[in-house]
Amino acid sequence: MTSTAEQARSIIAGTEAESADVEAATTAAAAAFASYRATSPAQRADFLEAVAVEIEADKDAIIEAAVAESSLPLARITGEVGRTTGQLRMFAGVVRQGDHLGVRIDPALPDRAPLPRADIRQRMVPLGPVAVFGASNFPLAFSTAGGDTASALAAGCPVVVKGHPAHPRAGVLVARAIGRAVASQDLHPGTFSFLLGGVGQDGIELGQALVADPRIAAVGFTGSRGGGLALVEAASRRAVPIPVYAEMSSINPVVVLPGALAEADTTAFAQAYVGSLTLGAGQFCTNPGLLFLPTGEAGDAFLAATAEAVAQATGQRMLTPGIAEAYASGTDRLTGTDGVTVVATGADGGEHAPAPLVAEAPVELLLQADSAVAHEVFGASGVVVRYDDVDALLPRLAALEGQLTATVHATAADRAEAATLLPTLELKVGRILFNGWPTGVEVGHAMVHGGPFPATSDGRTTSVGSLAIERFQRPVAYQDVPADLLPEALRDDNPWGLTRRIDGTLEA
Amino acid sequence: MTSTAEQARSIIAGTEAESADVEAATTAAAAAFASYRATSPAQRADFLEAVAVEIEADKDAIIEAAVAESSLPLARITGEVGRTTGQLRMFAGVVRQGDHLGVRIDPALPDRAPLPRADIRQRMVPLGPVAVFGASNFPLAFSTAGGDTASALAAGCPVVVKGHPAHPRAGVLVARAIGRAVASQDLHPGTFSFLLGGVGQDGIELGQALVADPRIAAVGFTGSRGGGLALVEAASRRAVPIPVYAEMSSINPVVVLPGALAEADTTAFAQAYVGSLTLGAGQFCTNPGLLFLPTGEAGDAFLAATAEAVAQATGQRMLTPGIAEAYASGTDRLTGTDGVTVVATGADGGEHAPAPLVAEAPVELLLQADSAVAHEVFGASGVVVRYDDVDALLPRLAALEGQLTATVHATAADRAEAATLLPTLELKVGRILFNGWPTGVEVGHAMVHGGPFPATSDGRTTSVGSLAIERFQRPVAYQDVPADLLPEALRDDNPWGLTRRIDGTLEA
Repeated sequence: MTSTAEQARSIIAGTEAESADVEAATTAAAAAFASYRATSPAQRADFLEAVAVEIEADKDAIIEAAVAESSLPLARITGEVGRTTGQLRMFAGVVRQGDHLGVRIDPALPDRAPLPRADIRQRMVPLGPVAVFGASNFPLAFSTAGGDTASALAAGCPVVVKGHPAHPRAGVLVARAIGRAVASQDLHPGTFSFLLGGVGQDGIELGQALVADPRIAAVGFTGSRGGGLALVEAASRRAVPIPVYAEMSSINPVVVLPGALAEADTTAFAQAYVGSLTLGAGQFCTNPGLLFLPTGEAGDAFLAATAEAVAQATGQRMLTPGIAEAYASGTDRLTGTDGVTVVATGADGGEHAPAPLVAEAPVELLLQADSAVAHEVFGASGVVVRYDDVDALLPRLAALEGQLTATVHATAADRAEAATLLPTLELKVGRILFNGWPTGVEVGHAMVHGGPFPATSDGRTTSVGSLAIERFQRPVAYQDVPADLLPEALRDDNPWGLTRRIDGTLEA
Repeated sequence: MTSTAEQARSIIAGTEAESADVEAATTAAAAAFASYRATSPAQRADFLEAVAVEIEADKDAIIEAAVAESSLPLARITGEVGRTTGQLRMFAGVVRQGDHLGVRIDPALPDRAPLPRADIRQRMVPLGPVAVFGASNFPLAFSTAGGDTASALAAGCPVVVKGHPAHPRAGVLVARAIGRAVASQDLHPGTFSFLLGGVGQDGIELGQALVADPRIAAVGFTGSRGGGLALVEAASRRAVPIPVYAEMSSINPVVVLPGALAEADTTAFAQAYVGSLTLGAGQFCTNPGLLFLPTGEAGDAFLAATAEAVAQATGQRMLTPGIAEAYASGTDRLTGTDGVTVVATGADGGEHAPAPLVAEAPVELLLQADSAVAHEVFGASGVVVRYDDVDALLPRLAALEGQLTATVHATAADRAEAATLLPTLELKVGRILFNGWPTGVEVGHAMVHGGPFPATSDGRTTSVGSLAIERFQRPVAYQDVPADLLPEALRDDNPWGLTRRIDGTLEA
C-alpha cells in the first residue's frame, strides 16, 4: 500500500465494476488480512459498533435510497436499518465474549505411560478474505452490511461486497459508512471493499471473477438457485476450492393439523396466512409457498376464507421488473399445470405489481420431478395441498427438497400427529416453528436460517444468528508452542477472559 | 426389515462387495437412522464402549491379522488397538457430556417492543448415514472402527464402511466386533455395515457407487489425493451434493532455526529426524517430507549426520506392493529432477521394502508447479532445502500448498524468527508444533488433524480428536415448539444436564 490519501481509502466502486476492480479489491483484502485478523476482540468489536454508528449517522439518506430503489415500504426499510445495526452490535458482543474462538487446551502430561502427552491448544482462525453477494430482497439486512458481512468481519475476515444492482445508491451509502468506520478505527483500507455489480451478464461475470480470484477464501450469497449453484460450481473449479454459503430457495411447507383448524377463528387464520404470503410482495426466502390442509368441511371453510382474503389483496410493486416478470412466468407455469386450480387471485397493483395468487394442487404433483408445484415462485404465490391423514402426508413431506423452514399449526388435540411430524421435518429443514408463520427471522443466538440442499448449498450452517460466524473460521492446533509465542487466546493467563475447554471440560 | 435371524444381523461383506451390497447396506443404514439418532446419550455412549469391549475381546486375532496383512510391527499394531478403543471411549465421553449438541436457547420475550420475540431453541442433529473409507496405513485406528466411524456413530449417524483391500481379515474381524455390539445393544442392524472393497478398478467403482447413493449423507476418507478428489467430484455430481471429509496428502514442512541447530546435539537431532522420517516405513500422513535447514557449517554438519543416519537405516516392508511401487516411482521422479541431489539412501530391505532416501533440493524448485519436490512421496523419503535467512524463507512457506502440520525447531535465541513464522504457518496448516516431530497424532480434545486444501478437502474440520464429531451434524432451530414436543436436549428441565447457551451466555 502507498500512503497517498487517495489509495488509503477503502475501494467503493459505485459504478458498474470491472475485472480490474475485482483484482484491486481482492489484492487490498489480502493485504489487509494479516493486520485485521490480528486485531484484539475489543478492536474488532469497536469496529463493528462503529459501522453501526456510521450507518445510523446517514440513516435518512440510506432509507430514502433503499425505499426508492426497492419499492419496499418506509416502515419496512426503517425496521431493516435497525435489524442491520442490531446485527452488527450482536456480532460485536459475540466477538467481545470470544466463545467463537473455540479455545481447547489439553495440558501436557509429561509422566503419562507409555508415552508422555504434549501440550496441545486449539483455537479458531479466520479463513481469509470473503466475497459477499448482496441480496435483492433485503437491501440492507442481507446486503452490503448485512449478516454475511457482519459475521465475516466478526470472524476476522476482510470482506469484498458485490453490491446488488437493484439498489446501487443504498449499497454505496452503506459501503461509505463502513469505509468511514474502517478509517476511523485505523484499519487497513482493504478490510472492506464494495463493487457494484451490473445487471445481467455483466453482473454474473463480475461475480464469477470474484469467486475465482485466488485471494478469496469463502463466499456468502443470498439469491436464486441458479445464481447460487453457478457460484458453487465456480468455487469447485478453482485450483483451491473454497466454501460457498449460498442461501437459495425454499417453499417453506406449512402443515395445518385438524385440531388447530377446528379451534381457530377460520377467517382470522386464513387472513394471517394470506398476510404472511403477501408480506413485502411475498419477496421473502421464508414465504409460506406450500400449505397442507385437511380435507373435509373445516378445510373447505379455510380455503373459502383464504380465497376471500386473497381477493381483497392487491399486488405490491416488486423489487425489479425482472423479478416481476419471473413471478408472472412462474405463476403461469403453476396455473398451467394439469390438475392445478386457482383458489383466488388478488388485484393487479399496476406496473411490476402483479396480483397475489393462491392455487390448489393434488398431492401427487408434489412427487413429480420438475413439477411447478414443488418449486419456489418468488413472490406472493402459494399452493394449497389437501390431505386426508398425517400418516399419508409423511412420505410427501419426506419427498420434498430441503427447506429453510417448516411450520406446524397444532393444538393439544393434535399432539400425537405433531409428534409424528417432527422427526421427518427436522431432517428436511433448518427451522421448525409452531402456530406462527415463517416470514420474520429473528436475529439471535439460537436462530437457524439455513437448511439442507437446495435451500442452501451447505446445510451445516446458518446465515442469520450468531452461529453464522463459524462459517468463516477453521481450527488450528498449537503443540508445545513456547508460552511467549502463544496467541493471546491460548495463553495460560487467559488475558481475554475466555471460556475454554480444558481437557474436554468447559471452564469459565 | 424382516425378523429372521439372518437378516437382523449387520451386513458384513467379507468378500469383495458389489453394487447390490451397496444398495443393501445403504438401505439398511437409512432404515436404522430414525431409531439410531433417537438414542439417548447414555445409550449411544454404551454402544461406543461396547464396540471397544468387543474389539478387545477379539484383540489377539485382530492383531495377528493386521500384522500379517500390513507388515507393520506387532508393537505398532498393538498400540493401534489401544488407540482405536481409546478413541471410541473418548467419543463415548463426549456423547455423555453432550456439549456437541450445541444447545442454544433464546427465551421468548412476549413484552418486547415493537414486536415480541418467539421462543427459539437450537440443537445439532446428525446428518444421516455416513460412508467411511478405511485407510491403508492405519488398519485399525483410521479404518473400520477408526476415527471417522467413531465420530459419525457418536454424532448419531449410521455408518457404512468400505473396507480397505490391504487388510481384509482385520477389517472383517473389527466389523464383526462392531456387529456384536450393535446386536448386544439392541440397535437396528443397519446402524453399521461393512463392505470389503476390491483392489483397483473394482474398489474404485464400489466407492463411487457408495458416494453416489442418495441415502448417504456424508463421506469420511483417508488416502491419496487422487482417491479423495475423485470422491469429492462424485459427491458434487449428485442431485443433492454432500460433504466429503477427505484427508489426502501433506509434506509437513519442518523449519530448523539457527539457534536450535546451534544448541542441539547434531547427531541426536539428525537421528531424531531420520527416525520420524522412517517410522512405519514413512507411511504416515504426517511424515516430515520437507525440512528447511540453515546454510552454513552447522547445517552442513546436520546434513552429514543425517546422511549417516539414513545410511544406517534399512527399508521396511511397505503396506502393499502397489504402495512400494509408487514409492519407487516417486523417489525416481524426485531424484531425476534437475538440481536435486541425493544426500543418502539406506539399505534395501527386500521385497516391497525399498531403501529410505533423503535428497537435497534448491529452494527455487519448491515454487515450480508440478515439481516433484513439493509433492508427497508416500514413504520414507525426505527433501532438505537450505535457506539463508527467515525473511527469504517466508514467501517460500507461503507458496506451499495446504498442509496437515508444520514444525518449528527453535530455542529462546530464535524467538524473533519463530514469531515471524507463526502467522504464515497458521494460514497454511492444521497443526503447528515446536521442537518435536509431526508423526504421532494425539487423540484428544485440542488436536487438529486437518488443514487447508489439498491436505484435506475441507479445511474447516479435523479427522482426529473430539471436534471431529461436528463434521456429521447440522443445526436445527425450534421456534415456539410446545414444551411437551421438544427434544430432551431442549427442554426447560434439562433432563440430560447439558451446558446450554442461554441468550448468548453459556450456563452449566
